Amino acid sequence: MNLIILNQDDFISSNKVVLKERRLQHISNVHKANVGDTLKVGLLNGNIGLGTIETFNTHSLEMNVELNSAPPAPLDLTLICALPRPKVLKRVIQSITTLGIKKIYFINCWKVEKSYWGSPVLSEESLQEHVILGLEQAKDTIMPDIQLKKLFKPFVEDELPEIVKDTYPILAHPGQKQNIPQHTNQALSLAIGPEGGFTQYEVEKLLEAGFQQTSFGNRILKVEVAIPYILGALSAF
Amino acid sequence: MNLIILNQDDFISSNKVVLKERRLQHISNVHKANVGDTLKVGLLNGNIGLGTIETFNTHSLEMNVELNSAPPAPLDLTLICALPRPKVLKRVIQSITTLGIKKIYFINCWKVEKSYWGSPVLSEESLQEHVILGLEQAKDTIMPDIQLKKLFKPFVEDELPEIVKDTYPILAHPGQKQNIPQHTNQALSLAIGPEGGFTQYEVEKLLEAGFQQTSFGNRILKVEVAIPYILGALSAF
Repeated sequence: MNLIILNQDDFISSNKVVLKERRLQHISNVHKANVGDTLKVGLLNGNIGLGTIETFNTHSLEMNVELNSAPPAPLDLTLICALPRPKVLKRVIQSITTLGIKKIYFINCWKVEKSYWGSPVLSEESLQEHVILGLEQAKDTIMPDIQLKKLFKPFVEDELPEIVKDTYPILAHPGQKQNIPQHTNQALSLAIGPEGGFTQYEVEKLLEAGFQQTSFGNRILKVEVAIPYILGALSAF
Repeated sequence: MNLIILNQDDFISSNKVVLKERRLQHISNVHKANVGDTLKVGLLNGNIGLGTIETFNTHSLEMNVELNSAPPAPLDLTLICALPRPKVLKRVIQSITTLGIKKIYFINCWKVEKSYWGSPVLSEESLQEHVILGLEQAKDTIMPDIQLKKLFKPFVEDELPEIVKDTYPILAHPGQKQNIPQHTNQALSLAIGPEGGFTQYEVEKLLEAGFQQTSFGNRILKVEVAIPYILGALSAF
């Protein structure tokens, strides 16, 4: 927790918050902070700044907060990602939040197992929990918008062209390494397939939707490794 | 398991292997393969090729193998990484193996907890297990050389200069993003700190050993995200 995330309902006055439970325990056990100490804080979807602990007991702490700085700039990239299996999904949500992605579509495709869509990880509460962990890690406050698209064809045909309009849409698909096209600061869209890859039909539908197929090397990476690797490669341009 | 890794002692003749247990179960349950089917195989630290199943029962299978192709090219990069906590270490070993790194030094530093060095994940058997998972994922056969360095100062002063000689040594350290220097196909060395970062003293010792401090953005990434992100960024040059 490099940043303590505050919610509107933590506030008891315009610049005072009361924290309990997970955040209290973390501040006590990990930061080992006490009265008078100052910690980095940020209001969910708002500014970041500093909080000074004014009272502290085993049930709650009170902080005086000043929130004067904007959160870090978001990544101007829309991610379209085949829904990973639940255990991986938790880590993927945290890492893509940490990396600053704000628009995320988890989509169905042939090699996504149906059971994944029934996972409790996809509940709003669970998604929020893992997003918060990612924001705390990156000292960010802006919640990403996560959308679940259970039907591949209608999504790719009817919604995706509008979503990727005004972006440079890249389809990451294994093969011989290609040069990444120069996109000169244009917003990006990035489509990443499931373990086992998109099928040929799915690749064709994504190309029809305007995506440019790009390979980032011939090693087959797990999705949780592929996403940061590709974002790193794209960041270099 | 995108590649079935074979060991010398699987061979019962020059081109026949017998597989049991984990690999048998995987071939049966995941590949759902049977007699006559052909799978990608590779000899540990040797060539890759194809194996054709000749007999198959619940206890073992026999394959005729032809190993004609070289494994994929290694990444010409030496990784020097603060030892992560054991749970993360497992995933890090798999992912750096998948990414093709062949020279890895896990090192101690101020913010590495002493207890990490006692983890059973560091046993030779366990390291090999996670390396094999990474090789299977990447269709590679070449075992990385993993070295454990429990003393920061003697390692950095006495061994590191020799290790990074003839490479471009990069110290990944957070801060304002800088341009990655062009290294024109030179071999790289990359030093990555622990959660919480290298201390100022440690940074200075690494700079003395010839490292160039480079920031890959101002977001604080977990080590399992930072490594592929930075390798991606470096791959683009």
